[in-house]
Amino acid sequence: MNKAKFIVVEGLEGAGKSTAIKTVLDTLQSEGIEDIQTTREPGGTVLAEKLRTLVKQDHEGESLQDMTELLLMYAARVQLVENVIKPALAVGHWVVGDRHDMSSQAYQGGGRQLPLKTLQDLKQTTLGEFEPDLTIYLDIDPKLGLSRARGRGELDRIEKMDMSFFERTRERYLELASSDDKVVTINANQSIDAVASDIQSQLRKWLKRHQ
Amino acid sequence: MNKAKFIVVEGLEGAGKSTAIKTVLDTLQSEGIEDIQTTREPGGTVLAEKLRTLVKQDHEGESLQDMTELLLMYAARVQLVENVIKPALAVGHWVVGDRHDMSSQAYQGGGRQLPLKTLQDLKQTTLGEFEPDLTIYLDIDPKLGLSRARGRGELDRIEKMDMSFFERTRERYLELASSDDKVVTINANQSIDAVASDIQSQLRKWLKRHQ
Repeated sequence: MNKAKFIVVEGLEGAGKSTAIKTVLDTLQSEGIEDIQTTREPGGTVLAEKLRTLVKQDHEGESLQDMTELLLMYAARVQLVENVIKPALAVGHWVVGDRHDMSSQAYQGGGRQLPLKTLQDLKQTTLGEFEPDLTIYLDIDPKLGLSRARGRGELDRIEKMDMSFFERTRERYLELASSDDKVVTINANQSIDAVASDIQSQLRKWLKRHQ
Repeated sequence: MNKAKFIVVEGLEGAGKSTAIKTVLDTLQSEGIEDIQTTREPGGTVLAEKLRTLVKQDHEGESLQDMTELLLMYAARVQLVENVIKPALAVGHWVVGDRHDMSSQAYQGGGRQLPLKTLQDLKQTTLGEFEPDLTIYLDIDPKLGLSRARGRGELDRIEKMDMSFFERTRERYLELASSDDKVVTINANQSIDAVASDIQSQLRKWLKRHQ
């Protein structure tokens, strides 16, 4: 039996993460992997979900500092990793995550332009060497992604940022993906079926190499 | 006119911080300083008070990681410093704080034994060179402090820790106080009147040197 793995799906708003996660789950199950837990970030524990709400809420007009947003993301992440992900992996359950650390690197580092050193230090301090075994990054043109996201209804605080924010975020995603061999990039500008098919074949290849 | 200053009162539970803050305010006013704002940590802004509540609350039995507690303390601190303390100082208002960064160094570093490097890195990353102009540290034997705190009613999550936690916290407080010439240590094992008198005379001396 395989050692349980932590697989993360990443990407901009409207990149198709929810559909991609379903494809990942179906593919894992078709390979006989049955004990799978899904998570989302920020969130996934009682406290982390409260932090998710705080980040998205208005606080009587109080300005949310970029550094505060980053610290709250990491607070939620530490709760999820220590209380959910590590215990699940320890008992042999696979974990499929909707976002993880790469989101902070891309959104707060790229989008909000917090210093790279701040991001790297905080990651090291809070998570140490813990990281996903595989990240599936859905790369999409922000214009296309946001138009899809808008079609789904109301936009939240982050989704109201201007286009240059998302372009910087995508740029950082691409930089990180190209320098990390644990990240697979999928062209998410394609049709839903083509994206699903790419994810399935990449994931099957990866599973074969890691059996 | 003096440049506005940031003065912090620190110490264990039951050290007499509230009374000390009144003494500080009275002393400043008797020296003709009228525009004074008080703050408390964690807290002091809408979002920071929500974070204070989260740290003290139970979350359906979910374990609060020491690292998460630390990140939430810094998230609250960043909001307070950027949205309240710096703007107050910038318009010439003095700020008197009930706790600040030294509390994290002492409680999370000393009490919870998080690595010194973690504490120092997080302080540098989030606050940079910002620090109080003067810290008045009320040093008290934890046994005496806790018996006073217990007299006031219910103890919160932190106050329920065992005695060795508070001994480690006090030890770190003393180390920090002895190595930082911006910290004045007051013997808070004395009577309330003697403590107030010491604070008043130390603060007057300090004000003279900083006029």
